[in-house]
Amino acid sequence: MASPVALIQGASRGLGLEFCKHVLKNKSLASVIATCRNPDGAAELRGLAEQHRSRVTILKLDVNREEDVRGAAERVKENFGRVDLLVNAAAMLHPSGKGETSLRDVSAQGIITTLTTNTVGPLIMAKYFTPLLQKGGGAFGQQPAEKAKQHSGIIVNITAKVGSIGDNGLGGWYSYRMSKAALNMATRNLSIELGRSRPKVVCVSLHPGTVNTDLSRPYHKNVPNDKLFSAEHSVNCLMAIINSLSIEKTGKAYNWDGAELPW
Amino acid sequence: MASPVALIQGASRGLGLEFCKHVLKNKSLASVIATCRNPDGAAELRGLAEQHRSRVTILKLDVNREEDVRGAAERVKENFGRVDLLVNAAAMLHPSGKGETSLRDVSAQGIITTLTTNTVGPLIMAKYFTPLLQKGGGAFGQQPAEKAKQHSGIIVNITAKVGSIGDNGLGGWYSYRMSKAALNMATRNLSIELGRSRPKVVCVSLHPGTVNTDLSRPYHKNVPNDKLFSAEHSVNCLMAIINSLSIEKTGKAYNWDGAELPW
Repeated sequence: MASPVALIQGASRGLGLEFCKHVLKNKSLASVIATCRNPDGAAELRGLAEQHRSRVTILKLDVNREEDVRGAAERVKENFGRVDLLVNAAAMLHPSGKGETSLRDVSAQGIITTLTTNTVGPLIMAKYFTPLLQKGGGAFGQQPAEKAKQHSGIIVNITAKVGSIGDNGLGGWYSYRMSKAALNMATRNLSIELGRSRPKVVCVSLHPGTVNTDLSRPYHKNVPNDKLFSAEHSVNCLMAIINSLSIEKTGKAYNWDGAELPW
Repeated sequence: MASPVALIQGASRGLGLEFCKHVLKNKSLASVIATCRNPDGAAELRGLAEQHRSRVTILKLDVNREEDVRGAAERVKENFGRVDLLVNAAAMLHPSGKGETSLRDVSAQGIITTLTTNTVGPLIMAKYFTPLLQKGGGAFGQQPAEKAKQHSGIIVNITAKVGSIGDNGLGGWYSYRMSKAALNMATRNLSIELGRSRPKVVCVSLHPGTVNTDLSRPYHKNVPNDKLFSAEHSVNCLMAIINSLSIEKTGKAYNWDGAELPW
């Protein structure tokens, strides 16, 4: 079997960087394609790539530029020919760095920028990388015995519990919540289209918990210590879910502990 | 009590135009503020305004331009001082006129344009008109006896059943589905913030059924005759729901027959 290929989008820091580390450590044969907007500014990722010279490829990619995504997919096609796992990790809370606490803080430009990065980006990634995921070897997740139910690849969209409409009891964070609700719809739509195709691609939304990253930093003081996860702990939990995925579990949103989240 | 004021956004045709007609016919004291991008091209709406000269005000407003919305709210404040009902009716299926049948049809620009009109527009309307809705007389919906539970205004976001993530069994129409899922999150968020405020504003999403309008025209051949509603029938159903609304019913998505829709 060909060696596994994992593509982590938004790999310069936070969860994305941690996904790269996890795969390098735990899937000893896997190659990692790490994408970020500005590789020059991603010192830790570049260090990781130097440590694992034969296994890490860094690609410059801004998900807000469709031509970037298309170009990256072409390079991955030439150099690898396939992808087994795509993780869409890049996200912003709001261009200001703080979620809207009330309607007064809402601006058209703020919502559109957030939607473009958090929602449109992952879907455009799915568009250009689906042909490569359909050529994957199914190296991540669980393969059932029945060949017709096996999958060639997995798409993971990092969502957030606050993107659940049904779970929303507090309000606020208009842009972020709306971007993740729309992303969950993209996950659902992708799971339907790619679950019909042969070979099949699994697509899920995963909530990482509240993680100690730049995105959530302004809010850490409100989070009890045992609820604020390190990126390492969160990715350990999420990779356990990913390792359990099959086509039967596609099209849903899962919490870090594996529980299904309401839409 | 001051006479009721209904503001219909996207009033040049389809459901929006029909909401204007319905209010003029059934709320004999109500004023109608009808907004559209291009009043010059809205012959039927201008005819309606000539027929009901003292009751209809047409405002030029493109929801994609935040300064338009702000300016319109200032004019309504000067001339009316309040709003009792805001209906966000304008929407597009996709800039091409056809929903995406597969991932191949998806483009960043197509999604962003659809999200901007269908999702950002209604939220920006809510932002600038909420102060006026909080000055409304509560002329639409049902008022409970308890004063603390009474509402001053109602926001209706026209959603679509295909915007329900949980109900999505067919896939496709990426941009439209995502825009309506995100709009439902906006509805939910607005209901929480404006349900806390005093006076309270009710906010719901309503699904009009499949209506004989320009938006759905390319798909009419697939719809059984008894499932393809006239705009008049649809608006009759939706106004029956609106007339039954109270703060107890805020923050949900309802089908044209009054049934609650899943998120």
